[in-house]
Amino acid sequence: MKLLIAIVQDKDTSRLTDVLGEEDFKLTKLATTGGFLKEGNTTLMIGTDDDYVDRALEIFRDNCSKREQMVAPISPMGGNADSYIPQPVKVEVGGATVFIMPMEQYYKF
Amino acid sequence: MKLLIAIVQDKDTSRLTDVLGEEDFKLTKLATTGGFLKEGNTTLMIGTDDDYVDRALEIFRDNCSKREQMVAPISPMGGNADSYIPQPVKVEVGGATVFIMPMEQYYKF
Amino acid sequence: MKLLIAIVQDKDTSRLTDVLGEEDFKLTKLATTGGFLKEGNTTLMIGTDDDYVDRALEIFRDNCSKREQMVAPISPMGGNADSYIPQPVKVEVGGATVFIMPMEQYYKF
Ligand code: NI
Ligand code: NI
Ligand code: NI
Repeated sequence: MKLLIAIVQDKDTSRLTDVLGEEDFKLTKLATTGGFLKEGNTTLMIGTDDDYVDRALEIFRDNCSKREQMVAPISPMGGNADSYIPQPVKVEVGGATVFIMPMEQYYKF
Repeated sequence: MKLLIAIVQDKDTSRLTDVLGEEDFKLTKLATTGGFLKEGNTTLMIGTDDDYVDRALEIFRDNCSKREQMVAPISPMGGNADSYIPQPVKVEVGGATVFIMPMEQYYKF
Repeated sequence: MKLLIAIVQDKDTSRLTDVLGEEDFKLTKLATTGGFLKEGNTTLMIGTDDDYVDRALEIFRDNCSKREQMVAPISPMGGNADSYIPQPVKVEVGGATVFIMPMEQYYKF
C-alpha cells in the first residue's frame, strides 16, 4: 500500500478528481492555504495498492503538468489609460508535486 | 511510532475526539473538503507509539463504524403536497478509513 | 527523502515560513482546525532530502519553541471595575510537534 500526497493547483483539481474517480481511486481533499505552487492549491491524499501507483502518476502527468497559457493582463491602475493597449501575456499554470509514502496497513470501519 | 491518518464523518468527529482525548491520544484535525466518504468529513492525524495503535483502532471501530439511521426525508418541492406523507428512510452514516503510516521520529519543541 | 509534518501555532507560522523559504525549503500549509496545541495552529508539510532534516529541525527549534510571554489580561465583565487593576500574566506560547516520515519517491510534473 502507498499513500500518495499530491499538491495541485485549484484549477486542475476538478478535472483531476473526475479522472481519478472514474478509475476508482479513492481520494481525500485537504484545504491548502499556501505552499509549493504559487497560486491557490489543493492537497489530495490517495490510498492505493502498489500496482496502481504508476497509473495514478500518469493521471497526474496528463492532467496537471506545468504548461503555458495566454491571459489578458489586468489594466494598470491610474497611468495613461488612453495609450494602454492590453496584450495577452504568457503565464505558467498547473504543476503538481506528488509524494509517494509507504503505508503499513489500512482499515475501513 | 506510527502516524494514523483517519478520515471520518463530521458528525462522528466530536465524540471521537472526546474519547481519544480521554485516553491521552494527541490529535490534529485537518479541514477536509471532500473525499472517501460522501458526506462532510474530517481528517485526523494521530501520532502514537506502536503499542497503542490497536487501542486507537478499537476506538475508531466503536465510535464511527458504518451504521444505518432512520431520517425524515425532505418533502419534495412542488408536487402534490397534500397527498405527500413523509416516511422516514434508512440511510447509511458513519464509516472511517484509517491509514497506518510508519513514522521515523518525532520532536516536540 | 523525508516528509516533515509539523504542527505549529498560527502566530509562529509567518516567521517560520519566511525562514524556511529563505533556505529553499518547499512547504505546503494545511488549514488545521484543532489539535495538539491548544491555540489555533497550522500544519506544514515539507518534503526534503535526508541531508537537510537536521537544519529544518533547527529552524523549528529556533522559531517556534515553547516560551513564556507576558500578556495583558482581559478585564472582567461586570464586577467592580474601579478597583480592578489589570496585571500582565505569564502565558506559555509557541511549541511545535514535528513528525519525520519516510518518503519513497517524489515527482514534479
Ligand atoms: Ni472500476
Ligand atoms: Ni492517561
Ligand atoms: Ni538557496
